[in-house]
Formats: sequence, structure tokens, C-alpha cells
Amino acid sequence: MARRLRLGMIGGGPGSFIGSVHRMAARLDDQYTLVAGAFSSDPGRVQAIGEQAFLDPGRAYTDWREMVRAEAARADRPAVVAIVTPNDLHHAPAKACLEAGFHVICDKPMTTTWADARDLAATVARTGRLFALTHNYSAYPQVRLMREMVRGGELGALRLVQMDYAQEWAATAVEATGNRRAEWKTDPARAGAGGTLGDIGTHAYQLACFVTGQPAASLCAELTAFVPGRRLDDNAHILLRYDGGMRGGLWASQVAIGSKNAFSLQVIGDKGALVWQQEHPNQLLFTRLGESVRCLEREISGSRLPPGHPEGFIEAFGQLYNDFAEQIRAQLEGRAPKPEALLVPTVEEGCESVRFVLGAVKSSKLGGVWLPRADWTS
Amino acid sequence: MARRLRLGMIGGGPGSFIGSVHRMAARLDDQYTLVAGAFSSDPGRVQAIGEQAFLDPGRAYTDWREMVRAEAARADRPAVVAIVTPNDLHHAPAKACLEAGFHVICDKPMTTTWADARDLAATVARTGRLFALTHNYSAYPQVRLMREMVRGGELGALRLVQMDYAQEWAATAVEATGNRRAEWKTDPARAGAGGTLGDIGTHAYQLACFVTGQPAASLCAELTAFVPGRRLDDNAHILLRYDGGMRGGLWASQVAIGSKNAFSLQVIGDKGALVWQQEHPNQLLFTRLGESVRCLEREISGSRLPPGHPEGFIEAFGQLYNDFAEQIRAQLEGRAPKPEALLVPTVEEGCESVRFVLGAVKSSKLGGVWLPRADWTS
Amino acid sequence: MARRLRLGMIGGGPGSFIGSVHRMAARLDDQYTLVAGAFSSDPGRVQAIGEQAFLDPGRAYTDWREMVRAEAARADRPAVVAIVTPNDLHHAPAKACLEAGFHVICDKPMTTTWADARDLAATVARTGRLFALTHNYSAYPQVRLMREMVRGGELGALRLVQMDYAQEWAATAVEATGNRRAEWKTDPARAGAGGTLGDIGTHAYQLACFVTGQPAASLCAELTAFVPGRRLDDNAHILLRYDGGMRGGLWASQVAIGSKNAFSLQVIGDKGALVWQQEHPNQLLFTRLGESVRCLEREISGSRLPPGHPEGFIEAFGQLYNDFAEQIRAQLEGRAPKPEALLVPTVEEGCESVRFVLGAVKSSKLGGVWLPRADWTS
Amino acid sequence: MARRLRLGMIGGGPGSFIGSVHRMAARLDDQYTLVAGAFSSDPGRVQAIGEQAFLDPGRAYTDWREMVRAEAARADRPAVVAIVTPNDLHHAPAKACLEAGFHVICDKPMTTTWADARDLAATVARTGRLFALTHNYSAYPQVRLMREMVRGGELGALRLVQMDYAQEWAATAVEATGNRRAEWKTDPARAGAGGTLGDIGTHAYQLACFVTGQPAASLCAELTAFVPGRRLDDNAHILLRYDGGMRGGLWASQVAIGSKNAFSLQVIGDKGALVWQQEHPNQLLFTRLGESVRCLEREISGSRLPPGHPEGFIEAFGQLYNDFAEQIRAQLEGRAPKPEALLVPTVEEGCESVRFVLGAVKSSKLGGVWLPRADWTS
Repeated sequence: MARRLRLGMIGGGPGSFIGSVHRMAARLDDQYTLVAGAFSSDPGRVQAIGEQAFLDPGRAYTDWREMVRAEAARADRPAVVAIVTPNDLHHAPAKACLEAGFHVICDKPMTTTWADARDLAATVARTGRLFALTHNYSAYPQVRLMREMVRGGELGALRLVQMDYAQEWAATAVEATGNRRAEWKTDPARAGAGGTLGDIGTHAYQLACFVTGQPAASLCAELTAFVPGRRLDDNAHILLRYDGGMRGGLWASQVAIGSKNAFSLQVIGDKGALVWQQEHPNQLLFTRLGESVRCLEREISGSRLPPGHPEGFIEAFGQLYNDFAEQIRAQLEGRAPKPEALLVPTVEEGCESVRFVLGAVKSSKLGGVWLPRADWTS
Repeated sequence: MARRLRLGMIGGGPGSFIGSVHRMAARLDDQYTLVAGAFSSDPGRVQAIGEQAFLDPGRAYTDWREMVRAEAARADRPAVVAIVTPNDLHHAPAKACLEAGFHVICDKPMTTTWADARDLAATVARTGRLFALTHNYSAYPQVRLMREMVRGGELGALRLVQMDYAQEWAATAVEATGNRRAEWKTDPARAGAGGTLGDIGTHAYQLACFVTGQPAASLCAELTAFVPGRRLDDNAHILLRYDGGMRGGLWASQVAIGSKNAFSLQVIGDKGALVWQQEHPNQLLFTRLGESVRCLEREISGSRLPPGHPEGFIEAFGQLYNDFAEQIRAQLEGRAPKPEALLVPTVEEGCESVRFVLGAVKSSKLGGVWLPRADWTS
Repeated sequence: MARRLRLGMIGGGPGSFIGSVHRMAARLDDQYTLVAGAFSSDPGRVQAIGEQAFLDPGRAYTDWREMVRAEAARADRPAVVAIVTPNDLHHAPAKACLEAGFHVICDKPMTTTWADARDLAATVARTGRLFALTHNYSAYPQVRLMREMVRGGELGALRLVQMDYAQEWAATAVEATGNRRAEWKTDPARAGAGGTLGDIGTHAYQLACFVTGQPAASLCAELTAFVPGRRLDDNAHILLRYDGGMRGGLWASQVAIGSKNAFSLQVIGDKGALVWQQEHPNQLLFTRLGESVRCLEREISGSRLPPGHPEGFIEAFGQLYNDFAEQIRAQLEGRAPKPEALLVPTVEEGCESVRFVLGAVKSSKLGGVWLPRADWTS
Repeated sequence: MARRLRLGMIGGGPGSFIGSVHRMAARLDDQYTLVAGAFSSDPGRVQAIGEQAFLDPGRAYTDWREMVRAEAARADRPAVVAIVTPNDLHHAPAKACLEAGFHVICDKPMTTTWADARDLAATVARTGRLFALTHNYSAYPQVRLMREMVRGGELGALRLVQMDYAQEWAATAVEATGNRRAEWKTDPARAGAGGTLGDIGTHAYQLACFVTGQPAASLCAELTAFVPGRRLDDNAHILLRYDGGMRGGLWASQVAIGSKNAFSLQVIGDKGALVWQQEHPNQLLFTRLGESVRCLEREISGSRLPPGHPEGFIEAFGQLYNDFAEQIRAQLEGRAPKPEALLVPTVEEGCESVRFVLGAVKSSKLGGVWLPRADWTS
């Protein structure tokens, strides 16, 4: 019988947004089980994540090299290791994992130098191990549909690709406020040569490549660091030329006050055009030359959810399960549950809804009359 | 050390949207582990889900009564059972589970009759077991914020609550096409007295109660079955009166061509108003009397994700993990992976992004010049 | 040769929003020329409008009866009179005008009583004069397209018509603050039996009739006056039944904080559906059963403007002309123009744009190089 | 007493969108009266517009030089002349008009060469005549509010200005289909050095200057002509540097399938940001650093209309007046009116609305009961 894949993780300690997202993602379709991790070099932080993830304490490491060595020697070794460290710590652990026989899931951007990038590619080729890079936007159903339509010729010959990616979180010197994520993302030693460019510009560029199938042939860039003292760009304006005549424009910014994660991709050909916006990911706007704009809704077949159940639907269900787990644990432990766990709909709320249905049916059957609540269920 | 909660499930066989959502939700925050299930009365269907969920084959049942009996006798018995069957099969299994000492998570609407509803409430009270009803919309961060603001008096005295919930899936006689979900949802024997009313009208009404804290005092309803031959309503118009003078309007429809899951809730007081729309769940529109409309974005604190990373973000990550699992399994089994699993970004795509960063930095450093791709990394 | 039609006006004094809209509308397509008016019973107010409209002072009246009498006797008498008074002052002047041989344009709702309504209809029939009622929403190109599509059978048999019309301006007791418009609109003696119902509910109901071609067969209404002391409804919830089985829901509110003029009409049949929203009037959302939503943009043929030049385009042009008129008059009169009239783009701004075009062309021709402004025109 | 300003026009023959917009704009606020025009060199076309505008036939010219000469000699000469010809015909008539003592309203872009632009500026200075350039977007109330807020320091020090202006009308070789507007706009001899750049890129650039008060210091442009055979750019990507460190990005395209007139301007400072979108012109999105996005609605004070009555409101009223004029004329002339003029709401529709109000009031007063239509008015 099939088994869940054993998963190791390097990086992703407490407070790491992306580490936590990776762990949720690994569980979502029930294909992985986390068995080992080197989440941090701080023993307390490692222990915190290890307990939260129900890890065997012996498999929670403070040194990723030690983890690779020890785990490689086990019979129940991970099949795959996820690397969710800052950018400068992608290459070495990824290479070590591949060489130790692990498949690798690696966060983006892949490395901070071109030499490291090519070395990693060579290592993948040499070891025959599998490697996945988490440019997650390419996994949205409507982005994949966009790619299919573009490559299937629905837009005709491509003319333009417009990429806008605007965020506001770095509009001030957050890196000076103790924000660990901001610290490394603005530190050339850890983030690499690009700041905003590496952090989100790469998402935009990768997605355009993913959808159009073409890397750019030439570019002209204007990178700016607006926040005083910042050592890496926090805004990028880039013009692009592609073989075959396509032109591109890319704007990536992390000082765009008012924008949370406003990422959009527009591809225009001589026969039609497509627009995808990350903040409305279930829709793809499609226009054929001379026709009306159509809104292509995510189909049930391309997703876990039916159309119109978009966003946070699973997460909201998960919240209920999570809150209810707290209620159960509290009862087991003879203590009061946390107050915020008490918002789970109760049996009384169930009654009220049943009562409502019955009242409405009764009112309607009586020809549409006003019916006091006391009479809904009588 | 804390352990994951053992979970059983009744209902949720292959093709059940809501069963699969419950299982994903249970995994999302890693608080549960599914150990037993009576997913269907069909042995093949039970086996399919059992294998997919890595269940011990001995704990995959075709009879929920048998499951309750057998699981209650085990040392490693479930702590909680999720009931995701059609409406007419909520009451009996829920009651049996509670009486066997299990906590219960139950899908909505809770029961098909008022007697069953009260009996279940009494059973909960008598057994001391916990009970959760999955009116999932009440778990969205912005809905909970809405409740907090309404109850905190930010809107002043309440005047109006408007509930619109429009879907299109039942605009034709889908129940006659072999669609199992449509079959039971339009069958009075299985769905209860309300069709659309019970299916989505209850979500709207529950959410209004959840947010305002008030059940309605009186209602006037007009239920209609538009599709010829349909035995339950597929459209509901309801007027509501509340104690204290508030008035309400509710429109629920499943023949609303053009609407996927267009659910919105608007609450208006004498000092302000709030609007939440399920299709843009991360935003809450707030207007104070005499001021501009503000868009309250979901905060990072109320969610697993930072603002602007709304919808499908985790799911997209999960897709990558899932596709990659297929690649790994295929290699282990010496076969070709399914083609759709090959869209996971590769090491070459990682290289291309690194190259792009370096090219852009170089162009910008040279004062903003056009730089051919060959020179990006040289 | 054709001549502009001579127009008289009753009502529409200073501060009357609708009077000023009628006058602009009459000028827009250059088919009318205002020659006479009884704008108010206050001589100062009459004179103000008369001067603003360049009227012959002898044709600006304080008594509409006097105006009807005097104008009817002139050779250059108006062909048509527009009546833009409060509701209780529609019937008598309209009847008098018709009987004096004038065609009539009348604001809505037509009268305050059913007897007056029928009497006016009889007068129209008897006199053979033409009568137009300014339910202006029925004149939007996309509303007329909606009507055409509905009547042409594009939606199949009609099932539902949903009308929402929400405004916020009456959320407090504005009628007690000296606001003349609010005073008469909340006064049963002047507005008639309906408050919000008459003011905007009639727009919604008329538009539904206009589009579907069907008046309602039966209704069930819940009218509420939320603002303490208000004598007419400020909120209306109405359920509607139509011959043939169509059902309708209407919500009209003027206490809906956060809504300026949120009027929408949705018509749903068994083959398709249409949605029009007044705040995005150039778009009509159309869904055929089983297909994607399409956004039908206003065509150039149905309008004065090409697609995508929606809203305020003419008004913005008009603003420039108006500001420039002030500059010219100020020069003629040897005085400084009002400061706000100086924002009209100048010859220097014209130079700057020309310079910009030339700079961009030059930069591009040089292969895309950064070009300092000084070199744009050299 | 004040008089309307006499207006002359050069250009704007039949089929000219912008000529007709200028004439409507001149009428909108009733400050001008068109008295003379050289609309075309074709006598039939001149006559058509002359009649439509009720001009004295002697003042409709086929030669603009003749018009300038003849009109300058009249006692009732125009105060101002509007020039709405193709770009190459702006400079000479504008100069001649100024020298003949007329004030000038001129369409954009002002001239096709830098020499002409400076010469015109010198002529304005020399003659003391007034000159207005119709960059109409700068006259929208929310654009003027944006300027005020930016200049008032609400955004802090400016960092970024983003201009996007996308249209689709030139996605194919429309200039080869007999479209006169497309012909001259793609002809370097008539349009000047810029195609899309001159047509809409100048609008974007002017608006950014208008709002920020800064011309660019340096630019880097990539102009492309995508449509085979086209002699001028139909797409422009431009990067901009401003004194003080602000950066800008401008994308103007007329091959952007799916976009009608998608013009947006975003200005970002270190304390806040503003976004204006031409297709939703009555809203201005404002975000202060660390706060929620607010939607600033157009105020009644800055406009002819109250908030939420945006777009086409006056035009829809105008449509009714226009249709009604056709009805009246048809009656005068003893002919049937054009069928499309019969959609004006009638006295019977007035009755139906009155009946509806009375029915709703009656139903509500009876406690909310279903009331057949026959009983609404009894």
C-alpha cells in the first residue's frame, strides 16, 4: 500500500511565514509526513517547532549538516527535504541533501549567485535526484489555464507581457525594527544581489516565462532603494525584449503603500489577451479580438473546490477543526479552553437554523404570511 | 507530549465535495489524524477513500453503526467523529456517536426535523460531549471582525441586515442527470423541508445571527421551485423582523445564472455599516456615518497568511507538494509520472530567475542600459 | 431649417439638483432652448436662475399659473414645459400646461395620488399633447440593451428580478437641518404616501417593468421609518409576484450608510441572466446558461462616446470650457479670474507634452537609452 | 447682463468624435454659443454640421483661413475659437486665431514639432490672448483632489508615479479600413513623431505633471509598432527619472485587446499613496502609511452631480430630452417619430409607479400582506 512520503525540513523556525506555509501545504493533500527538521540553530526554537509538529525529539536538529548526516543513515530516512532558509542558505543544504540522496523542495530565489545556481543544476543532473522550486503562483489553476491557452495559440502571436507586483510592507525601514524577515531580505549577504527584485520580481518574471514559454532576450532595468540606508533595491522598473518581437514591462515594488500583494500578469497577442490577478485568483479575464471580455472562472476539475468557493474556504474549515481541538484538549486536561476557541458553531446554532428553515417553509406554505418565531416550529 | 486527535468520519465517500474539504481542514493545522471511517455503504467506495487516507483497512467500514460499535471498543478509539452525510443522516449517527462517548463535528443543516434538533441538543447536554457544526463562513477572519465590531457598538443601534446568497448550479434539473449531490439536496426525504433554503439559506441566516447576536422575531417567506418537477424550493425570498426594530431581507437562490457562490452580508446601524462578500473574503468594507468607505484588510494576526496573500495560496503550495509526491512515487516505482505532475518549477527555472536578478542588477548598475541575456551572468 | 425647441420650466430654483440636471440635459444635444421659467415663488431666486440661464427677464415668473397663461399667449411660446417641482406640484401644472397646448416633461413620481395619476393620463389622451416622465435610468444604453435582450428571449423564460437601490443621505434627520430637498421628500403632504419608496423605489420598479415588460401581479411590503420622528418610510423591503411565475425582490433604502447611489437590477431567466449596476453603467454582465460571464461594454453606436470613455468625460471637457470662459470674462472685465479657473492646461503644458513625445521617440530610436530632458528637443 | 461667449470652431466635421465632444462640452454649462465653424474642407460636411448646430449658413466655412479673416471683421465676432483638427493642423490655425485677436481652445497634443510648440507659446505671450489645451483628464474632480492632496503634502516625499494607459482599438490595421481617425493618427505627417505616444501617452504624462508638479528629468523609452506596416508606435514603454529622486513608469498601448480606455495614475510617497482610474473616475483610493485603503468619493461640491450619480447621469437625462424632441418634431411635421425615440417613459408608466407606491404602502400598513395589483389603488 502507498505510504505518505517522509519529509525533512531545513529552516522554518518560529515566526517564519514561509516555513509554516510549507508545512501546511505538505499536509493539505496528505502526501507527506514531516519526520525531521533543522528549523533553526537555536535549540529553543527548534524544540518549539518540533513539538508543534509532533516530531520525535531526536529528529529535531540545530545543525542542518548534522541532520543531513544523521537522517541519511536511518532506515526511515526522509524521501525529500524542504529548504526554507534565507536565500544564502539554499545552495549548500540543497547540494548536501541531493548528494545524500534526498529529493529537494527549495524556496525561491534558488541561489544568490550564478555559480551556485549552475552548480546546483549540475548536482541535480549528476545525482539524479528530483528538485522542486516553490514558485507557487505557477500552481494556481487559472495560471495553468492561462499557460495552456497562450501555448495553444488562443492569443495568436504574442506582443506584450505586463507584470506588476506591488507590496507595501517595506515602505519604511522595517529591517531596523527587529523584524527578522525584513533583516535578511534587505541584507545583500543573505538575500543576494536583488532585494525586491529577488523577492517578488523573480515571481513575476518566472510566471511570465511559465505562461509564455519564453525567457527574455534583453532587458533594461532601473532599480531603486527608496528607504534611506537600505542596501538593496526596494523598487524595480524593467523593460524587456523577447525573441520574436514580444515586449515586456515589469514593475515590482515593496514601497507601494496601499498594496498588500497586488500581483498581476497580462499577456497580449494579436488575436486576444489574458489577465490574471493574484488577489482574485479564481478568475481569468479573456478577450478575443473584437469580442467582449469574459471572466473564466476556475472549474471544479482544476481545483479542490467548486467555482465560487474561492478563498480561504479550506482555511476557514481548518479554523473550526483547530478551535474544536482546543476545546477537546481543554476538556481532557480539566481546564478552560482559550476563549477564542469557543466561536465554533454550537448545537444551539444548529437548532436555530433548523427552526428557521421550518418557519420559512411554513410561512411560504401559508401563502406568505408574517410568522412569529414562536410559531416557526409549532 | 501533545498528540494529534484521532478522528473518525461518517460519510464523505468518493465524489463528496464536503467530505474531502473536511479531511483537508482536519489536516491543515495538524491537530487531527484520521483513523477510521464509514464513508459509504458501498465496499468499493469505502476502500477507495480508506486507501487514499492511508487508513488501516480494518477501520474502513460500510456501516456507520458498526463503526461506532467497533471503534468505541478500541483503546485507540477516535476522540471525535465528523459527520458529513446527507441531512437526513445527521441525527442518528450524531446521537449514536455522542452516546458512545465521541465528540462530534456535524455538517449543516443539523437535522431535518425540529424534534431531531431538540433531541440532539438534549443528547449533547446529557452526555457532556462536545458538538461542533460546520457553518464555515463564521470562521473567516473578517466575519469574526465584523461580529466584534457590531457587538462592540461600532455601528450604533442596528437597523438593517441584508443577506444575499446566489448560486447557479441548480438552474436546470441536475438532479435528473445522475449527480448524487443534486439528487439528495432536492429530495425532501433526505434534505428536509428546505431545498436552497436549507442548503444555503441557513448559512446566510446563521451568519446574520452570528454577527448581530439576534435571532429573528418574525418572518415572511416566499419559496419557489422554478425548475419543473423539482420537489423543494430552489429560490427563497424572506423578510425578517427582529426585536428592537431591526429589519432584514434574505435572498437565497440556486437558479441565479451567472453566480457561483455570491454570498454577501451587509449590516447597517445608525452610526455605521459593514459589508462582507464571500468572494472577496479578506476584505471588510466599513463606513462610519459621514465618512469614506474603508477597506479593512485581513490582518496577519487573524490568519495563517499575511495580508494580500488571500486565496488559494496554501492550496497552490499544496498542489506543488502533491505533484512532486507523484514525481517521487513514479521514480520509486520505475514508471513515468503523470504529465500534469511535471509542472512543478524546476532547477532550470530556478537558474533563469537567478540569471534575471543578476541581469537586472547589472543593467541598473550600468546606469540603465539594455543588456542582452547572454550578458546577464557574465 | 430646423430650429431648437423652445422650452419652459416650472420649478428648479437655486439649489435644486434636479432642475439643474434638466437644464444641462436639455442643452446636451442642442435640441432645446430655455425661454421661460417659473423656478420659484421667491422673486430673488427666480431672478438668479433667470440670469444664469440668460433668460429674458420678462419671462422669469414667480407664479407658474401666470407663466402658463402669459406664455400661452405669445407667438414664440414654448413647445414644451419641464416640471421639476416637488411631487405634490406635478399634477396641477402638468394638467394646466397640457390644456394650454404645451407638451410636458415631468419629473417622477408622477403624482401623489391615484386619482391625480389617472386624471393626468386622461388629460394627455384628451389634449393629444405629448408627455414624458424622467425615469432617467431607462435611457442608459446598457439598460436599453438589457431590455432588448430580455424581450428578444436571450434569457429564456423569466424567473427572477432583483432590484436593490441603496443610498445613505437620509440616515440621520437631515430634514431638520434646513435641507429643502430633505424637507419635502420626508413630508407626506408634498412627497405623497411613499418616502424612499416614492423617491427611489419607483425608479427600481419602473426599470424592472421597462426591462421585463411586466407589471407585478401582487406584492407584500414592509416599509420602515428608522429615523426618529420621520413621517415617511426611509426603507422598503418588497416581495413581488408576477403573472407567469416570475418572482421579484426589491430593497430600497436611504439609511444605507456606505452607499451613495447603489442601484442594481438583475434579471434571471431559465437560459441566462443579466446584471446592470448604475455605478458602472457602461457595463452589462451577461451569462448564458453554462457559459462564462461576459462584460458587454457600451458600444459607440448607442452613445455619444466610444467605449471606455464613460463617465464624466463630457463633464470634464465641460469643466475646461467653463473655467476658460471665466478666464476670458475676467480679462474682458479687467479683473483676476477665480483661482480655480486657472487649472486649465496651458500652452506651456502643451510644450511639455510635445517635448516628451520628442524625447521618447529619440530615446527609443537610439536603442533605448536614458535621455536627460535637456536633450529631448535638441 | 452677462452674455454667452461666442465660439468658433476649426475642425470637428461629421464623424469626428472629439469635435462633437467639444460642442457638447461648450453647451454643458451654458457659457458658450457656437456662431461660426470651419469644420471641414468639404462643403457637404460643413453644411451638415452647420445645420445640426443651427449655424447661420454664412458662417459655416470650408477654409479656416477664410473663417479667421471673415469672422475677425465682424462686430459679433467669436471671443474664442476651438481647434479640433488633426495634430499637424493645430499650430497654423491657433497662431492665426491668436493673431486675429481670438482666444484659443486647442486639442492635444499641441503641435507636431518643438519649433511649432515654442512658436505658439511665444505667440500667446506676444498677443496676450488666452490659450487652453484640452487635456480633459485634468478636469475630473477626483484628479484635482489628487493634485491638491499631493501638493499639500499628504503623501510625504514622492517616490513613484505609475501611469498605465491601455486601449485596444488599434490592435489591427484599422487605418487600412477607411477609418479617418485611424488614418491620421497613424500617419507621421499628420500625427507627428508619436503615434500612441502622442495620442494617449501625452495624456498620461501631462496628468502626472499636473498632479505632481514635476516634469521628468530623464527618460528611457521603448516604442514599438506591432501592427505590420504601421508607421508610428502603437505601444510605448517608458522609464522616467525625476529631480528629487522620484521614479516613474509609463505604459501606453493601443493594441491592448480587452482594454477600452484603461487609464490609471498611481502616485506613491513615503507617507501615503493615491490611485485614480479613469474608468471609475468618481473614486480616489487613498492610503496613509499603516492605515486602511479609503475610497474618497467625489463630493457634490466639486461636481454637477451628487455622489454616486456618476456616469452618464446627465447623458441619460439628455437622451430623454433628445428622444422627446424627436417625438415633438414628428408631431409638428405630421410624421411618425423614429421608433427608438418612443422609449421615453410615458404617462402610463407614471401611473404604474404611483400605483406601486400606493400598493406597497397599503400592504405594509396592513401588517405586511400579499396584495394583488387590483387592490393596490382601491
